Amino acid sequence: MTTRIVELRRGILKKNDELAAGLRSRFQAAGVLVLNLVSSPGTGKTTFLERTLRDLRARGARVAALVGDLETDNDARRLAASGAPVRQINTHGICHLDAEMIGKHLEGWEALAAPGKALDISLLDYLFIENVGNLICPSSYDLGERIRVALLSVTEGEDKPLKYPTLFNSADAAVITKIDLAAPCAFDRELALKNINEIRPGIRIFETSAKTGAGMDAWLAYLEGALKTS
Amino acid sequence: MTTRIVELRRGILKKNDELAAGLRSRFQAAGVLVLNLVSSPGTGKTTFLERTLRDLRARGARVAALVGDLETDNDARRLAASGAPVRQINTHGICHLDAEMIGKHLEGWEALAAPGKALDISLLDYLFIENVGNLICPSSYDLGERIRVALLSVTEGEDKPLKYPTLFNSADAAVITKIDLAAPCAFDRELALKNINEIRPGIRIFETSAKTGAGMDAWLAYLEGALKTS
Repeated sequence: MTTRIVELRRGILKKNDELAAGLRSRFQAAGVLVLNLVSSPGTGKTTFLERTLRDLRARGARVAALVGDLETDNDARRLAASGAPVRQINTHGICHLDAEMIGKHLEGWEALAAPGKALDISLLDYLFIENVGNLICPSSYDLGERIRVALLSVTEGEDKPLKYPTLFNSADAAVITKIDLAAPCAFDRELALKNINEIRPGIRIFETSAKTGAGMDAWLAYLEGALKTS
Repeated sequence: MTTRIVELRRGILKKNDELAAGLRSRFQAAGVLVLNLVSSPGTGKTTFLERTLRDLRARGARVAALVGDLETDNDARRLAASGAPVRQINTHGICHLDAEMIGKHLEGWEALAAPGKALDISLLDYLFIENVGNLICPSSYDLGERIRVALLSVTEGEDKPLKYPTLFNSADAAVITKIDLAAPCAFDRELALKNINEIRPGIRIFETSAKTGAGMDAWLAYLEGALKTS
C-alpha cells in the first residue's frame, strides 16, 4: 500500500505544481505580488496580516487576501476589518491549501472586478494567501506565490525551525510575531535566529509585533521593494 | 484521482483502527493507562508533559513516554529530565503518529523490561504519547489510547476549537496551558470555555501552568482517578 500512496502523492503534487506554475504566470503577467503565509495555528498570522493589509492600504496600495481554514469564516471577518477584499476558503478537513483551491477562489470574486467588468487581478498590487494553520502539510503545496513566508511566534519555542525544517527551508522570508510577549515568554532571540539560519542560511527575518507595530516598517519596506521587482 | 485517494485513505485508516484496537487490548490487559496528547506546535505539550511525568513520579507512579516529531530528539531529551523512560519517534515528514509506529516503538524498549527479562508494559501505570505538533491530521489516527487530550494555550486564540473541531470533538479531556500568560495575552477565558463546550459539551477542562504549577493538582487527580478505573 505504501508504494501506491507514494505514487499517488507524487501524482497529486505534480498536478499541483502544474496548476501553481499556471497561476504564477498569471500573477506575474498581472503584476500582482502574491505571498503565501504559513505557520502553526495560533502564531498570529491573521492579526499580523490584518495589520499588514491596513498599513499597505494606508500607503495607497491595492491589496486583497484569501484565507484558508478547515471551518468557520472567523478569519475572513477579522481580515475584512482592514477594509481590503477578503475571501475565506474552507477546506473541510483538508490540512493545507492547494493551487486548485486558489484558482477556484479567484473566479467570481466581485470585489476584484471593475464595475460592470470581469475579474481582473491586475487591479491588485498585493494578494496575500493565509494558509491553514499547520507547520507541515502546506510546505509541499506550491500556490503560485512568489514569496513564501514562514511565521513563528515568541510563544512557540525556539526550536521550531529544526523540528519543521521543510517549511523553513522552502521559505523566502521568516517573520517572528508577538515580540511584545518576548519577556514574559523568556524568548531566546539569539537561539531562534541561529536556528532559522541553520535551516535557511541568510533568509530575511523580520521581528514584529502587530500589537505595538514594532518591526512593521521593515516588513512593509521589504514588500514594497519586492513589488518593484515583480 | 480523488476517488482513489478517498478509497486508499479509508483503507489506511481501517488498517490503523485494527492495529489500534490490538494495542488497546494489550494496554488494558497490562493495566497501563495510555494517553495521547495532541495540540498545535508551540502549545507547550512537552513542558506540560515533563511536569506531569515528574509530578506523577514524585507520587510513586511508574510512568513512561513516547514522543513524536518530524525531526530531532529535542523533546525526548527534555522529557527525560523528568527521570522517566522516554523514546523519540521521528516521523521524517509524516504529519501524525499512527498505531504501527507506536507498536514498533514498544518493542526493544529496554527501560520497560525488568533486568534480564523481556519487555513488560505491565511494569507501567501510565504511558503518555506526545503526538506530532499538528491540530489536524493526528485527529484521524487512533493510537490505542484510552484518553485523548487536546491541548490549547492561552497564546493561541480562543476560536481554535471552532476552527479545528475534529480534534476537540474526538478528545476526552482538554487542557488549557500557559495560564500564567493569560493577562499579557488578553486571554478571554469565558469565550475559550464556551467554544470548547460548543464542540464537545461537558468535556473535562483543566486550566494549567506548567511553570507555576497552577491546575496541576486537578489534572493529577483526574489521571489517578482514570487509572483506578482502567
